[in-house]
Amino acid sequence: MAGPSLFERLKESCRDDWQRYVAHEFVRRIADGSLSEAAFRHYLGQDYLFLIHFARAWGLAVYKSETLDDMRQAAETATALLDVEMKLHVDFCRGWGLSEADMRALPEASETMAYTRYVLERGLAGDVLDLHVALAPCVIGYGEIGARLAADPETAAGNNPYTAWIEMYAGAEYQEVVRGAVAQLDRLWSTRGSEARFPSLAATFEQATRLEADFWQMGLDAADRALG
Amino acid sequence: MAGPSLFERLKESCRDDWQRYVAHEFVRRIADGSLSEAAFRHYLGQDYLFLIHFARAWGLAVYKSETLDDMRQAAETATALLDVEMKLHVDFCRGWGLSEADMRALPEASETMAYTRYVLERGLAGDVLDLHVALAPCVIGYGEIGARLAADPETAAGNNPYTAWIEMYAGAEYQEVVRGAVAQLDRLWSTRGSEARFPSLAATFEQATRLEADFWQMGLDAADRALG
Amino acid sequence: MAGPSLFERLKESCRDDWQRYVAHEFVRRIADGSLSEAAFRHYLGQDYLFLIHFARAWGLAVYKSETLDDMRQAAETATALLDVEMKLHVDFCRGWGLSEADMRALPEASETMAYTRYVLERGLAGDVLDLHVALAPCVIGYGEIGARLAADPETAAGNNPYTAWIEMYAGAEYQEVVRGAVAQLDRLWSTRGSEARFPSLAATFEQATRLEADFWQMGLDAADRALG
Amino acid sequence: MAGPSLFERLKESCRDDWQRYVAHEFVRRIADGSLSEAAFRHYLGQDYLFLIHFARAWGLAVYKSETLDDMRQAAETATALLDVEMKLHVDFCRGWGLSEADMRALPEASETMAYTRYVLERGLAGDVLDLHVALAPCVIGYGEIGARLAADPETAAGNNPYTAWIEMYAGAEYQEVVRGAVAQLDRLWSTRGSEARFPSLAATFEQATRLEADFWQMGLDAADRALG
Repeated sequence: MAGPSLFERLKESCRDDWQRYVAHEFVRRIADGSLSEAAFRHYLGQDYLFLIHFARAWGLAVYKSETLDDMRQAAETATALLDVEMKLHVDFCRGWGLSEADMRALPEASETMAYTRYVLERGLAGDVLDLHVALAPCVIGYGEIGARLAADPETAAGNNPYTAWIEMYAGAEYQEVVRGAVAQLDRLWSTRGSEARFPSLAATFEQATRLEADFWQMGLDAADRALG
Repeated sequence: MAGPSLFERLKESCRDDWQRYVAHEFVRRIADGSLSEAAFRHYLGQDYLFLIHFARAWGLAVYKSETLDDMRQAAETATALLDVEMKLHVDFCRGWGLSEADMRALPEASETMAYTRYVLERGLAGDVLDLHVALAPCVIGYGEIGARLAADPETAAGNNPYTAWIEMYAGAEYQEVVRGAVAQLDRLWSTRGSEARFPSLAATFEQATRLEADFWQMGLDAADRALG
Repeated sequence: MAGPSLFERLKESCRDDWQRYVAHEFVRRIADGSLSEAAFRHYLGQDYLFLIHFARAWGLAVYKSETLDDMRQAAETATALLDVEMKLHVDFCRGWGLSEADMRALPEASETMAYTRYVLERGLAGDVLDLHVALAPCVIGYGEIGARLAADPETAAGNNPYTAWIEMYAGAEYQEVVRGAVAQLDRLWSTRGSEARFPSLAATFEQATRLEADFWQMGLDAADRALG
Repeated sequence: MAGPSLFERLKESCRDDWQRYVAHEFVRRIADGSLSEAAFRHYLGQDYLFLIHFARAWGLAVYKSETLDDMRQAAETATALLDVEMKLHVDFCRGWGLSEADMRALPEASETMAYTRYVLERGLAGDVLDLHVALAPCVIGYGEIGARLAADPETAAGNNPYTAWIEMYAGAEYQEVVRGAVAQLDRLWSTRGSEARFPSLAATFEQATRLEADFWQMGLDAADRALG
């Protein structure tokens, strides 16, 4: 493909919101290690609840896909999320003092609810391209954040409690997931996209990007409230 | 719009299947009045069941629409189907010896099921454009059939028991519905369509057109079976 | 029906959250007329956006309904919302200095998004009973609030700028809508409900109730921010 | 569980239709080896198309599930269907002279369409219990057919070209899938079921059972047409 990818175009269309997401204060404090443990723990618990709805969205993507390849990719993603990612997340959280039972019992934060239901409902009302565009800020954005933090010489390495988190998303395996997601958006765009649809897709992408930024902010706010 | 409408393009893309639908033997026998009453009665009963699912599809169109105008049109269509069309249909059927209670108790023919569930499921899996394309062969095709039969000097008028049916779809009110549906397809195409999507939309239109032809054939077959 | 209605049971199951909704400070200030105009105006604008998604939910209810009566009621509600309620709302808002164009251009508040997408997604994932339970706190709750404020001698009448709003929901027409909604929940419960399902329905009802309280709070917060 | 399983009750509620499905002439001719190769080949090709929509239904089940266990089971089933079953089916069909490219190019028979869209649409309109009940005649019925034929001394073994097919469904692996499906129906019934819902669930089960019988009949009819 000669021109920019659909993902690049979507990102460019909401550059400021994208920056507020990928360079959010929560992310900057992960980079320099100054994020409070309370904020990170709140984030981790809600991310567990998020992952459940995220897996539901990939189940929906199996249903909505129009090719066997897209169906397979979506089914494998749903299975990987439920069988691998959630277990890794649970292991990771245990290291932070959170058990799976604790996390299951958490009330769902309004930021978690707003984001997950927006993505699911957008995918149900629209088609498989709308759904994947709504999923993109999460899937691809975490890869961009991980890669940037890992490459940035200012990211604290030595004593940073968040190094394992950074490395997970900067790692080769996750970066491969990101490349797959970018390529899939381009494939779907080539069969179902059009310039006439771009503004609507850009609105979906921008909205999901804002909800990602709200999700980071939720972590900071929870920690502030806890300090009271 | 300078070029042909989306509807004209879709029809052209499956010209033979379209002819098999709009010029089906069932239709030809309506025109010359030779259709057996048993065939027509079977058709009427299944059409009652069809209308229920058709109204569900317009409810889905309210949910899937992306503008207030499209939502209003879909909600008014659903309400008109449920409050007006179904009652007209019931009155019409009573004249043919079928009560509403009789029709509600009918087993759903496999042709009715295949057609209605195809349209609903296509609309759920795809977007509002996919849904309206799946609905078009019915909404617009009946108008084309009515107008053609009414204009054709070979259509039997004097003694034809099906004249009221022909006039219903040839009438100004229904022809206005048809024009609205053609215009709506063009509006949806202008915001969500693309040449890349055309083959998929044409496949949906062709499938729904075939299922309409099967629905006519069901009427003839039922009458033949009854004669046994 | 001898025992309490499903609605009464659901309300009882989350009594504290229900009180936080129907007796929210926003409601108390409507009653005594002390609510700031800025708060009310913010609420009105978001309520306009809310109504659009609410109408989509009733479209979905047409699709999900299992009887012609339920389909008709849902289609009439969707049509009434789109053709009557939204126009009344627009007229009402004009009196408060808000044009429809202004309201359409508003960014959707996260509280509006969280609530509307929760209801829609719950209805899509579950069945028609889940959907109507998710809709109940809004439909029935507004009627309870209107009736209580209108009957309360402490509600300021003379100079209260919110009297028209109170009378709208206390009025005979809206109270009839409320009775219909309560009866419909009982009908759906009698065909699809069970004690085993009650905890899940109660969780849906509680969640939607909390999101209603958040919607009131949004109005107060917006006014505070505006004062900044 | 003391009483009969939900599956047993559903089967009992449509005993005649169930017999017409599991003891259909197509099945009897598989048992005695007299089924024409043309009939079996037609069936195999349509079964390939069926499997694609069946995998979509399991994607939908991931989305609709209300517990992590149910989500995992559904995601694993979707992945197994797409990654394992479809490849086994393709290998099996190759032995019968059908390439995957041939099968992908087949027009979808109306029986395939009616059945698959009925199941998907039922699952979308209803809840996760409605969906699993619609899936049960296929999942569990094939296991019952396989086990019965394998156990029946009258089933031709020596020269029967269909022995491999019988053994696939009679085998321990598939029988384990069947037990899982029966148990899952009981679990869903215990959380979402009720006697009031039973007639609606039984109607879904009966309809899907009839569509399975139609699917067998399609194979016989196609072979008859080919002989012409």
